Amino acid sequence: MNQSEITFQPDGKRVTIANGETILEGAIKGGIDIQAICGGTAICGKCKIIINSEKNAVNLITDDEKRILTQLEIQKGYRLACCTVPKGNVTVEIPINSRTGKQRLQIEGIEVPIEFDPFVQKVVLKMTPPALQDLRADAERIMDEVHNILGHNIGIDFNILKKIPHVLRDGDWVVTVTIWNNQKIIDIERGMTFEKNYGVALDIGTTKIAAYLINLYNGSLMAADSIMNPQIPYGEDVVSRITFATKNPNLMSDIIVEGINQLIESLCEKAEVKLYEVYEICAVGNTAMHHTFLRIPSDYLPIAPYVPVVKNSLDIPTEKLKLDIYSYGNVHLLPIIAGFVGGDKVAEILATEIYKSDEICLTLDIGTNTEIALGNKDDILVCSCASGPAFEGAYIKHGIRASTGAIERLKIDPVTFEVTYKTIDDAKPRGICGSAIIDALSEMFKAGIINHRGRINVSLPTPRIVDKKGESKFILLRKDETVLEENLAISQEDIKQLQLAKAAMHAGAALLLKNKGIKIDDVAHVFIAGAFGCYVDPEAAITIGMIPNFPIEIIKSVGNAAGTGARMALLSKESRKMSEEIGRKVRYLELVLDPDFTREYAKSMYIPHKDRISRK
Amino acid sequence: MNQSEITFQPDGKRVTIANGETILEGAIKGGIDIQAICGGTAICGKCKIIINSEKNAVNLITDDEKRILTQLEIQKGYRLACCTVPKGNVTVEIPINSRTGKQRLQIEGIEVPIEFDPFVQKVVLKMTPPALQDLRADAERIMDEVHNILGHNIGIDFNILKKIPHVLRDGDWVVTVTIWNNQKIIDIERGMTFEKNYGVALDIGTTKIAAYLINLYNGSLMAADSIMNPQIPYGEDVVSRITFATKNPNLMSDIIVEGINQLIESLCEKAEVKLYEVYEICAVGNTAMHHTFLRIPSDYLPIAPYVPVVKNSLDIPTEKLKLDIYSYGNVHLLPIIAGFVGGDKVAEILATEIYKSDEICLTLDIGTNTEIALGNKDDILVCSCASGPAFEGAYIKHGIRASTGAIERLKIDPVTFEVTYKTIDDAKPRGICGSAIIDALSEMFKAGIINHRGRINVSLPTPRIVDKKGESKFILLRKDETVLEENLAISQEDIKQLQLAKAAMHAGAALLLKNKGIKIDDVAHVFIAGAFGCYVDPEAAITIGMIPNFPIEIIKSVGNAAGTGARMALLSKESRKMSEEIGRKVRYLELVLDPDFTREYAKSMYIPHKDRISRK
Repeated sequence: MNQSEITFQPDGKRVTIANGETILEGAIKGGIDIQAICGGTAICGKCKIIINSEKNAVNLITDDEKRILTQLEIQKGYRLACCTVPKGNVTVEIPINSRTGKQRLQIEGIEVPIEFDPFVQKVVLKMTPPALQDLRADAERIMDEVHNILGHNIGIDFNILKKIPHVLRDGDWVVTVTIWNNQKIIDIERGMTFEKNYGVALDIGTTKIAAYLINLYNGSLMAADSIMNPQIPYGEDVVSRITFATKNPNLMSDIIVEGINQLIESLCEKAEVKLYEVYEICAVGNTAMHHTFLRIPSDYLPIAPYVPVVKNSLDIPTEKLKLDIYSYGNVHLLPIIAGFVGGDKVAEILATEIYKSDEICLTLDIGTNTEIALGNKDDILVCSCASGPAFEGAYIKHGIRASTGAIERLKIDPVTFEVTYKTIDDAKPRGICGSAIIDALSEMFKAGIINHRGRINVSLPTPRIVDKKGESKFILLRKDETVLEENLAISQEDIKQLQLAKAAMHAGAALLLKNKGIKIDDVAHVFIAGAFGCYVDPEAAITIGMIPNFPIEIIKSVGNAAGTGARMALLSKESRKMSEEIGRKVRYLELVLDPDFTREYAKSMYIPHKDRISRK
Repeated sequence: MNQSEITFQPDGKRVTIANGETILEGAIKGGIDIQAICGGTAICGKCKIIINSEKNAVNLITDDEKRILTQLEIQKGYRLACCTVPKGNVTVEIPINSRTGKQRLQIEGIEVPIEFDPFVQKVVLKMTPPALQDLRADAERIMDEVHNILGHNIGIDFNILKKIPHVLRDGDWVVTVTIWNNQKIIDIERGMTFEKNYGVALDIGTTKIAAYLINLYNGSLMAADSIMNPQIPYGEDVVSRITFATKNPNLMSDIIVEGINQLIESLCEKAEVKLYEVYEICAVGNTAMHHTFLRIPSDYLPIAPYVPVVKNSLDIPTEKLKLDIYSYGNVHLLPIIAGFVGGDKVAEILATEIYKSDEICLTLDIGTNTEIALGNKDDILVCSCASGPAFEGAYIKHGIRASTGAIERLKIDPVTFEVTYKTIDDAKPRGICGSAIIDALSEMFKAGIINHRGRINVSLPTPRIVDKKGESKFILLRKDETVLEENLAISQEDIKQLQLAKAAMHAGAALLLKNKGIKIDDVAHVFIAGAFGCYVDPEAAITIGMIPNFPIEIIKSVGNAAGTGARMALLSKESRKMSEEIGRKVRYLELVLDPDFTREYAKSMYIPHKDRISRK
């Protein structure tokens, strides 16, 4: 008998092999999902299998296996596929840990299935040293060996050449090479270090920078954290930040890179990972953050027609960006869409998967600029609305960021005008943050405190309404209920600012719908992304007309979808490819070019909207 | 009539074009050789033609042409092909200056035709600025424009992104981009700088470093010079140099790079070229020089089995090598063949074109290591002979380098033993250099002063032969004929050193012939390369058996063929491709592995060779 048949469980797939071939060779031939990082050289110990046939159906356990497998594993019948040679037909089980498999990525709000297939891969090489009969150069010897394992040619980063001769000889010709994108060897280390392989996903926001440290050997999340963007002292909003950067370009870049370095360092400390074991960063950010992070001038971003310096995705050697991770690693930046629609929006479209959806979806990321995307697998249109920072608390007298003592939720009794509320950490109130600002506007409208035009009804019989010095306001909390020196109120001026902000968002969404010829009823899903979006009460948002009149049940918060998108593009070649496609295909609508813009904006100033005021 | 026929002179090729198309469009369509560096946008003025038909056969001269052409050119009937639209059939002459054409590269000894097609190319772009209706990012706008001209996509070096927005706007949207290998934009400058495009070919030898500054816009040689390798004080020969480098790796690299920087700077000064206008260096060198130049450890080169760290050709960003030319330019290193057969040998094979030859050729580069190649277009075998530095004057009592006062040529009268000679610069003799050392050995043998075994015949009746203190010698010049304090003589010990050296070379050549199964008579050409090779008298070399008994008339000196090869690979994509192929295909023969090596070496110690001693 010159051949045997292997049945692989749990799939039941059958493969015929020649006499003397190993089970691993059979698995590779049959396209069976099994790990074999060392290319079948009995080094990595990843190709563990269980023989379900008689023990003597295969060869005796080898010394290599005795070295790699634990006593317990041997007792349980474990073998290594690369060392096991069938003597006849056998049935073999591949345990879950020996599979490379699909993984699922869990984030707040949504769960996205991705193919785990990172760009950075470590491969163990066991080589024969040079001899007079084999005079291959060190680099070519390595490349030949990698070719044997991967089946194709790759290059070697010039920076690594210096290390090669010593590492090879000190490591006694057993080394681990780190390969980027199946293309290029970017590191070589003595011995077996294939489990020490990490990456960082980065979401660089104007306000917050979030980072995720991820194990690229198995896909697990090692640590995650965020910091306030250290540029904030130089300007709250993007435009003032850019204006400062024009005069101090290096300072703004140094500050943000230093902040990111500290953030990554603290993640690595927590997870006991060495900085030089982090080989890749996958970053998203709005266009202004993208440019300052990369030390590309953003001078022309705030000047019409607001074009960025570069839109395409980028792969940049770490050393160019003064990042403290592995020097010859890679920093990938997702593409950006326009001057005010950045890679964070691309990541959000990736994570919400609207680019794959049959149904029409709308995503919305509320901020100083609110970016809205509308579409499905056929076409996506995005716009950027200059909504301003009112919902982040700026320009609102008692507005503050979402932090301890901020009112985050409130109700107004429509009869008594009594105000009930909740603060963050249940502390004594010191101001009102975005989610409760929306609540307040909505509640005041429902209680008749303000009318469709946002005017405070000063004739209402309540001491909470004050109208003096030519300005009226509604008192939410009396001075003694707060830590303030005065009553906590919403003024007519505050309301005007909020109307301007919500009108910008509503107009953006309305013009997207108009431009794509889509009716409100045709939209199947509305995703509100971003930290702020998590806390917005969809009903209140609809009541004030911050967004068009969608049914409440189709509105869903998806948390930091941009961060999720960055993680997907770090973990999966397929996802990264998709992000490229999103960058290329998504169309940008310049709102000010739309002839209906001014009229739609004016109509959206009404609460909820001029077209939604019921005729009396 | 909807189309016209253009006849292009002097080729006579005919092309039919549609109404309204320009003569340039016709030329491109017909594959006519004409320059159009700006892509037909009436900027570069390179596509000058002469209309040989009636003046009214084409449109009137345009304002662009009036701006670009001189008064005299207009009088002579010159037009620009990109501005000229035929009204019917026309005959057009393309003057030689408007052709891109093949160029010939003249070097000492040999002339090699190459296709002028350098890796670095400058292209002028005249762009439309962004507008609300055209929101392309700066980088993508440039890439689109280049695509229009080159017809394919290219990338942009990350380092350039920072410059882009300012250069575009300061240059009023007319810029020149520098493109490497049709692949990547490596520079952008405001205005039109397409003529400022230079490269350097570099031959890094153990003794000498030669550099050629070349205009990559038209192929002309701007300046050439050489310096002594500044590493010489740290060791004359390669092995002592490597030994020192093992302990002081940075020092040896710094020294050589600094020397190269100074050499290039002086060439640029002479030619009035700015250092930042030099975009590419194409370098060759023996393996040890290659490694130290690149800061790659050469520790294992002198240790058996003498493998290099890397053999393949390399493209390295200039900034990595601390070179003072354009920071984001490219340094190309030709491949190397083995630990003791470097890129200089590849360049020599390229320049002598033996890899294309139908006939069998042998090339020989005499030095401390003498590398010999034997073969033709079907197969080339090389070896490295440890000939030692005797022919460079080392280990020879009165041996000196080829410099002022060195005897470079000599004759001995076979009857009177009278010595006639010539020194460099006709100065009073202070020693004897390589070419005359060979002459001396040959003349002494022919005059019977030494026998087949190299023994001095002390019984000859001449006072020039001295035999005392157990050592015999032949006096070439008496003390008073020289600047020395003693007689200038060749001793028995000197002769032994020379026999060892010439035996190594002869054995190498003989074993190459044996391994390829080729007879002496089958060899059609013998090329002696290198500075030293220029001065060797082929007849003397044959007489002493430094090389096998080839007919004198097939031996040719080819000067610095390695430098020529480097220049070819700088000027021509085709030549560089060929050098890659040479690096891959040439086979290396490790002489010590040949079972006949010891016997052949011993036989080669005879003068001229044991097999050539006529039986008496």
